[in-house]
Amino acid sequence: MQAHLSHQPCWSSLPSPSVREAASMYGTAVAIFLVILVAALRGSEPPESPFPYHIPLDPEGILELSWNVSYVQEIIHFQLQVQGLRAGVLFGMSDRGEMENADLIMLWTDGDRAYFADAWSDRKGQIHLDSQQDYQLLQAQRTRDGLSLLFKRPFVTCDPKDYVIEDDTVHLVYGILEEPFQSLEAINTSGLHTGLQRVQLLKSEVPTPSMPEDVQTMDIRAPDILIPDNETTYWCYITELPPRFPRHHIIMYEAIVTEGNEALVHHMEVFQCAAESEDFPQFNGPCDSKMKPDRLNYCRHVLAAWALGAKAFYYPKEAGVPFGGPGSSPFLRLEVHYHNPRKIQGRQDSSGIRLHYTATLRRYDAGIMELGLVYTPLMAIPPQETAFVLTGYCTDKCTQMALQDSGIHIFASQLHTHLTGRKVVTVLARDGQERKVVNRDNHYSPHFQEIRMLKKVVTVYPGDVLITSCTYNTENKTLATVGGFGILEEMCVNYVHYYPQTELELCKSAVDDGFLQKYFHTVNRFSSEEVCTCPQASVPQQFSSVPWNSFNRDMLKALYDYAPISMHCNKTSAVRFPGEWNLQPLPKITSTLEEPTPRCPIRQTQSPANPTVPITTEADTE
Amino acid sequence: MQAHLSHQPCWSSLPSPSVREAASMYGTAVAIFLVILVAALRGSEPPESPFPYHIPLDPEGILELSWNVSYVQEIIHFQLQVQGLRAGVLFGMSDRGEMENADLIMLWTDGDRAYFADAWSDRKGQIHLDSQQDYQLLQAQRTRDGLSLLFKRPFVTCDPKDYVIEDDTVHLVYGILEEPFQSLEAINTSGLHTGLQRVQLLKSEVPTPSMPEDVQTMDIRAPDILIPDNETTYWCYITELPPRFPRHHIIMYEAIVTEGNEALVHHMEVFQCAAESEDFPQFNGPCDSKMKPDRLNYCRHVLAAWALGAKAFYYPKEAGVPFGGPGSSPFLRLEVHYHNPRKIQGRQDSSGIRLHYTATLRRYDAGIMELGLVYTPLMAIPPQETAFVLTGYCTDKCTQMALQDSGIHIFASQLHTHLTGRKVVTVLARDGQERKVVNRDNHYSPHFQEIRMLKKVVTVYPGDVLITSCTYNTENKTLATVGGFGILEEMCVNYVHYYPQTELELCKSAVDDGFLQKYFHTVNRFSSEEVCTCPQASVPQQFSSVPWNSFNRDMLKALYDYAPISMHCNKTSAVRFPGEWNLQPLPKITSTLEEPTPRCPIRQTQSPANPTVPITTEADTE
Repeated sequence: MQAHLSHQPCWSSLPSPSVREAASMYGTAVAIFLVILVAALRGSEPPESPFPYHIPLDPEGILELSWNVSYVQEIIHFQLQVQGLRAGVLFGMSDRGEMENADLIMLWTDGDRAYFADAWSDRKGQIHLDSQQDYQLLQAQRTRDGLSLLFKRPFVTCDPKDYVIEDDTVHLVYGILEEPFQSLEAINTSGLHTGLQRVQLLKSEVPTPSMPEDVQTMDIRAPDILIPDNETTYWCYITELPPRFPRHHIIMYEAIVTEGNEALVHHMEVFQCAAESEDFPQFNGPCDSKMKPDRLNYCRHVLAAWALGAKAFYYPKEAGVPFGGPGSSPFLRLEVHYHNPRKIQGRQDSSGIRLHYTATLRRYDAGIMELGLVYTPLMAIPPQETAFVLTGYCTDKCTQMALQDSGIHIFASQLHTHLTGRKVVTVLARDGQERKVVNRDNHYSPHFQEIRMLKKVVTVYPGDVLITSCTYNTENKTLATVGGFGILEEMCVNYVHYYPQTELELCKSAVDDGFLQKYFHTVNRFSSEEVCTCPQASVPQQFSSVPWNSFNRDMLKALYDYAPISMHCNKTSAVRFPGEWNLQPLPKITSTLEEPTPRCPIRQTQSPANPTVPITTEADTE
Repeated sequence: MQAHLSHQPCWSSLPSPSVREAASMYGTAVAIFLVILVAALRGSEPPESPFPYHIPLDPEGILELSWNVSYVQEIIHFQLQVQGLRAGVLFGMSDRGEMENADLIMLWTDGDRAYFADAWSDRKGQIHLDSQQDYQLLQAQRTRDGLSLLFKRPFVTCDPKDYVIEDDTVHLVYGILEEPFQSLEAINTSGLHTGLQRVQLLKSEVPTPSMPEDVQTMDIRAPDILIPDNETTYWCYITELPPRFPRHHIIMYEAIVTEGNEALVHHMEVFQCAAESEDFPQFNGPCDSKMKPDRLNYCRHVLAAWALGAKAFYYPKEAGVPFGGPGSSPFLRLEVHYHNPRKIQGRQDSSGIRLHYTATLRRYDAGIMELGLVYTPLMAIPPQETAFVLTGYCTDKCTQMALQDSGIHIFASQLHTHLTGRKVVTVLARDGQERKVVNRDNHYSPHFQEIRMLKKVVTVYPGDVLITSCTYNTENKTLATVGGFGILEEMCVNYVHYYPQTELELCKSAVDDGFLQKYFHTVNRFSSEEVCTCPQASVPQQFSSVPWNSFNRDMLKALYDYAPISMHCNKTSAVRFPGEWNLQPLPKITSTLEEPTPRCPIRQTQSPANPTVPITTEADTE
């Protein structure tokens, strides 16, 4: 048991000459690492200021991560606390949480001494020392029940083996070493107890506004319903504000998920019904029920939206979401999306959303607008694609029609796709040129749909274009994945939160149906097989009969990049703004945003064989 | 005139304290550079061994570059000799010889002292100091008539501002500084006298075989003809070997270009006529002349090929190209491609090829095989494309039919396109997997078509597939560029030189005509305009009437990536091997070669603000 640090710790006090001697045992790689330890003796950096962010990494709570961010230095300080440390631990980041091709720190022991190193795993999970040591260990301290490590890393290192930390989702990975290893190269992640946790490391540091004294709460929740044993259910429940409820501002809301149902409740929204109708019928049942009154289709104004992984949402101090009072319907529709793939029976649920509101109205009414793609099977993803992109547009014609001259200010954004979504981005374009990113997540996960405060408020003026692109991975599919409401269908949505509120609630697009039919015709013409693209077939049927050879895939991409679109430029009550919205041309974009070049730390080149080769200059003077 | 180094040189002897003092004048950037000069004092590296390679950089001969290559250290040593140095010089590399986005060394003076630095130019030609100094100055010496600089650089530096030196064409750039500059940042390349020179820096270091004592020469050259005043002429001239000329091996050949016509002679080939015919008519005129006897179409076996920029060509010591003797026609066809865009009249020409041959036959007969695309308008490039790729295949069926079990050994390769070609690559695939690159030029220029010895001989076995892809830039075109013989049409060819010789002389492909017609039909169907794709129109006419929107571009790419091909799997005498060669499936490639990850030099991260921040490790022991 000597090797287990939890029983017989052997964290060396450093430095000592014996460290140098020991180095020779482990060859060149470890020698490089030891040089780093020796270098560490020269100075001392005190532990950083308190860490505002914390998460448990593993379900058992063995590993807890805290961190803070310096945007000036572009550095993150991490504190990793390990309970009951055994032979070591690994921590790091990878593209989508896999243990292969990961950027790692390793803390391990050979049974005698302990080592810390910046490392990486190859595509087989084999661990290697990084030729460039970018994670810097600042402190390693024994705690009452384990160990605490303090280390830092720049956002960008320019080492091709390192993860680039950006302000989108980061997939953290961890692993627990149960036994000593004679060298770093002897470790493979496949033999370890490992896992992942998703987090946004570079959070927007907008201060949480304090709640006014008159803040009150109202719970909009399902009335103890029985979750259907279907894979996908959208549950609709109509409720009503108290009689003569005056105008208030919602300034914060949070989810209330019934204990035990955390995995079943996928997302929830609270909609307000149209003010034009004086009365709405009671309803409590699946949204697609034949019993559902048609009038409930007029309950579509979003008051609050929550999805898996989101935390409490605070509005900026100058804005709140209005509800109650004259000119506003007292009827609310709660929609809960239950995802029940194991078809569990008999589960009761009272999940919903808790609204925090104030009678002291803030300066601006806030609203939510849906950008992206219309929920229609016209937009589809072929199977076996690793990165297929679908794009939805909010055109200049729509923003011209719907926005006031002073524009709107987007302060938060929630990206949304179903299960095959891997990336989402919304870009603002003006005069045919992409100008700024509204929100981007290159490591988007449908299992981590937070509403994120933007680091900078984005102002959208009339005539601006908003382009929302989603990237999908359908490697596991055998048939095309079409757009739609079902969890096995796909969506591409960015819910943007903004003020001052406008009538525009939905600014989305889909390809023109006639052009898609020309596509199916061409598929037919090029196909030697019998392909059913007969007009009586539904679009999902047509897509399911396409033979997915490279030509039909590429031609579908080409179609979506070219064909005219149908715009949904909709007011609050499921009504389009006046105008012609079919067969609209795609926005012309003449210049796209360049990927920013990483700012690499300054370095001197050293040849690996001769770390310090002096160079010579001869020059003579006349 | 004091500032001009040629009159009053001021190369400082270094180091002196004044250098450090002077640094403060030029701010942080120059300070970094001075640190490098100071570092240089610590050691001395002797000049390297002789430089085997030399080229003049500019037409006036002011700048001459010599270099040698260490493949072990992956380093090039350069010697740059400057005659009549004025205020400085710049030298470097860029993607295609442009002065913007170039990787540079700068030698400049502020009128008082001289400086050397690793620098780069931005997309406006503005020069900046490189944050990472990878060019190391080893020696700066005054010579009788100027200056000699000795410096070295690794092939790969992993600095995003540095050019990656590979074994393809490198576009060297140079510039001459006429006046002093107060700082590096004050220099813009647009104000300088600049130019470019193309060269292969990393040449294959196969030793030139010595010529046997019995070597003889024979000139195959045009009989003092008058170059036609047309833009493109292929001139055909039939000549005959001496009577009863026995079998010999050509072991070397070189071009003889009539003085003054260097810019008009684009490429030349010597073909041998088919052995089956006993006699061939005399001919001396344009190859497309109506007077040309049809029988000359049977003179297609390549004996020698030269193109603009190529040097003398030596065969490996175990192989030579057979000619003369029984079973071999004594008739030779010289084909000279004259490129005369200014339609110059009255120019006489006697250019041709000088064959060096021996009666002492070598072990193997060598041959040349054409890979790539058939010369047909079916393969076309839309206008306004920056990097459109066309691919030609030599299929497994053809190599299976034509090659012996022991395969063939490719030892040299000449890539060929016309004016819009920018990249060419041939990859060998086996069992559906790409295995190795036969030859690749990512900086290919139609103005620099050398025959290059391969660094490693590539063996091709029956059943192997050879895939040749060419990338074209048609930004300056308004109509599609179709495949064909004319200089304004395009080609995609790799002439591979190999032994032992086989009957297979041509292994090329083109898209199936019927599928291209389906493409034109679809263009019609999606087009609102009237597009002439009527069957009576020729393919070039059909292409010229396509409206080049994104859909028609993308669909053409998709077609070429998918549609079946027609194979030209041809024997020596313009005759196909027996078998079905039309409507062949494209080779299925399941795994492609990965771009090699660059091996970066080992470095320690340093934050720019604090170049040497020691780190601290605290650890306690129980």
